[in-house]
Amino acid sequence: MCDNRRDEKIIGGFIVKINKHFLDLQDSYLFSTIAKKAAAHVEANPDAQVLRLGIGDVTRPLPQVAVDAMKAAVDEMGVAATFRGYGPEQGYPFLREAIKAYYAAKGVDLAADEIYVGDGAKSDIGNILELFDKDNNIIIPDPVYPAYLDANIMAGRKVFYINGDEGNGFLPMPDAIAVKPDIIYICSPNNPTGSVYNRGQLKVWVDFALEHGAIILFDSAYECFISDKTLPTSIFEIEGADKCAVEIGTLSKMAGFTGVRCGFTIISHNLQFDGQSIGKMWMRRQATKFNGISYIVQKGAEAVLTPEGLAGCGENIAVYMDNAKTIAKTMAELGIWHVGGDNAPYIWLKCPNGLSSWDFFDKLLAEAHVVGTPGAGFGVKGEGYFRLSAFNSKENVAEAMRRLKNIL
Amino acid sequence: MCDNRRDEKIIGGFIVKINKHFLDLQDSYLFSTIAKKAAAHVEANPDAQVLRLGIGDVTRPLPQVAVDAMKAAVDEMGVAATFRGYGPEQGYPFLREAIKAYYAAKGVDLAADEIYVGDGAKSDIGNILELFDKDNNIIIPDPVYPAYLDANIMAGRKVFYINGDEGNGFLPMPDAIAVKPDIIYICSPNNPTGSVYNRGQLKVWVDFALEHGAIILFDSAYECFISDKTLPTSIFEIEGADKCAVEIGTLSKMAGFTGVRCGFTIISHNLQFDGQSIGKMWMRRQATKFNGISYIVQKGAEAVLTPEGLAGCGENIAVYMDNAKTIAKTMAELGIWHVGGDNAPYIWLKCPNGLSSWDFFDKLLAEAHVVGTPGAGFGVKGEGYFRLSAFNSKENVAEAMRRLKNIL
Repeated sequence: MCDNRRDEKIIGGFIVKINKHFLDLQDSYLFSTIAKKAAAHVEANPDAQVLRLGIGDVTRPLPQVAVDAMKAAVDEMGVAATFRGYGPEQGYPFLREAIKAYYAAKGVDLAADEIYVGDGAKSDIGNILELFDKDNNIIIPDPVYPAYLDANIMAGRKVFYINGDEGNGFLPMPDAIAVKPDIIYICSPNNPTGSVYNRGQLKVWVDFALEHGAIILFDSAYECFISDKTLPTSIFEIEGADKCAVEIGTLSKMAGFTGVRCGFTIISHNLQFDGQSIGKMWMRRQATKFNGISYIVQKGAEAVLTPEGLAGCGENIAVYMDNAKTIAKTMAELGIWHVGGDNAPYIWLKCPNGLSSWDFFDKLLAEAHVVGTPGAGFGVKGEGYFRLSAFNSKENVAEAMRRLKNIL
Repeated sequence: MCDNRRDEKIIGGFIVKINKHFLDLQDSYLFSTIAKKAAAHVEANPDAQVLRLGIGDVTRPLPQVAVDAMKAAVDEMGVAATFRGYGPEQGYPFLREAIKAYYAAKGVDLAADEIYVGDGAKSDIGNILELFDKDNNIIIPDPVYPAYLDANIMAGRKVFYINGDEGNGFLPMPDAIAVKPDIIYICSPNNPTGSVYNRGQLKVWVDFALEHGAIILFDSAYECFISDKTLPTSIFEIEGADKCAVEIGTLSKMAGFTGVRCGFTIISHNLQFDGQSIGKMWMRRQATKFNGISYIVQKGAEAVLTPEGLAGCGENIAVYMDNAKTIAKTMAELGIWHVGGDNAPYIWLKCPNGLSSWDFFDKLLAEAHVVGTPGAGFGVKGEGYFRLSAFNSKENVAEAMRRLKNIL
């Protein structure tokens, strides 16, 4: 920090300097490219019923208990006696207690002040990078959710990929790392592949991070789709994770909150680097650049985490997972290599006939009026693969699969 | 960006490096220190009626039209046919059109795609720094809202202050700048001083920024309190601002949305540096690290900007501004130097008897059970001054002023 309370001449002739790392970003974001292609197809084929198994967005309505809670919260805001202004940046205690209980039910013991409520996983997983020096090596699986990479490119950080492939079931392990690892992204169940690390694999990751003084950023956005009880739904089910991992969770997929916006980040009091508490640093970041999320949304989130709310979420999840099974079954019948769909709402398939990801996208759109997601959009190693999503109605998924069978 | 698909040995023995700039932050955030002192006072004086004229938070409930709109939106989310998932990161067109109309009414012509909806001014004003190289000189008024400074300290940026004082009415002008200016923060009406730049002064700022290739980050959070029609409520009322300024607005104070969360950032298509559109860069930042705000909140914000909603806001604003007049009148009667309170909900006063800001805070709390905000919390030049806020009931403000008169 400097001070200009001194005599100095203004040096003219220069303009404000932009962050040049933005120029390293690919020009178009995956999903907007897909949206544009789909829109052009609809315009050219006004009579076609286009079925969207592309973007990972939920389609089913909120559980009624969340609706009721949010309406009651809105009413509170309209009356002086119950009106609420700024809430705690970290989230109201009632919601942090509810998240704590949700984790306790899966055997993970958290303190409520280890939970930081936010407006969604994408925000937190991007913003948390600010806590770390630019000079860290970033380890990112390939393929994976593209926001991880873009957030790092924007900051000019050094990114190293670890490759997913058919050999490792798109679950790369630490032996794929050839540099000093500092910040490691893990997404399990994985977006886009739907593959899930088992307990032994996550233990290897945790031990590796502890050994190398690295931090794991664990994205658990899809944990609610895990039905196999032997699979971990939180990194904190693994011993030692409290000392090396941050978990970023969300109600987006679990409770249909993609348009409501509520996520959370979990940082153990035991997570320290250079003698600094990462949780305290995150709190300071949030208190400076964030003002908490809507009280109304927090009341809805609290309701979702009650037994009644969780039952409502479960009904929606069951519909999506039935769809996933339908898609996986179709792939099996067509003899198409695939992973996912058993403990995740995504099916990751190898494009038939050696087609590239975008060629298969174009074929599916042109011939079947079905929108999917090209694997190449998730990384170099996604080329030749394709993601189908179970987020749609049972009828639409069944119809999409009929059409796929017809054209393949 | 690097690639590790090559043979390289892992270099061990180091751990992930934290962002050391966080260590340069002052240990405690202003308002949490105040909250702790107030809580301790309440505990020590359980029978005292403590009156809070400290934090800048609204106290009056939402306009009914916003309540109705949000309840209807919640209902939509509970039904499959009207359920909405991810919305546009930039905000729904209906809300951007409503904000456009709000600006049109004050004579500012915007395109809807120059408006970026966000979760609040604090988020946007911090995050927008990411678009600019670290090597820019940051110009910050002193005193001012502390989040500007903290966001820059965290990023290790070079901060230069421009001094507010009684001589300039706490409205520093460009002649106070002694370095090459790159990024200039302007907050008008100012938080904490309540002083407002007039049209001529803002024109000097815009011309200065254009001449020096600098960008102005204009925080208009308190524009709704301006009643003097000759004063500008938006930087875009000044010719040339489209080419040098970003405006960050919010519904927090205007519509009582501090706990609902809705702000917006306005970036003209004409704002370019190094041949790059700042609006496009911001869109890319938001699409990568943000997922838009709640549909429910956006429907509430749209309702607030209807004539009925604005009338409801106006009633609340009138109450606060009556309070501001009461406070300013008391200061005048006590012969205490002050600014603000006429077009802003804050009164900035010189601590009587040469007391320091925190000594006056302690005196007010101990002797009058009134919580205010020490000016020193807003910068070095705030020492010896004090902020009183009009955000409270008419009765509480009147009672607080009675107590002040008794002890001074």
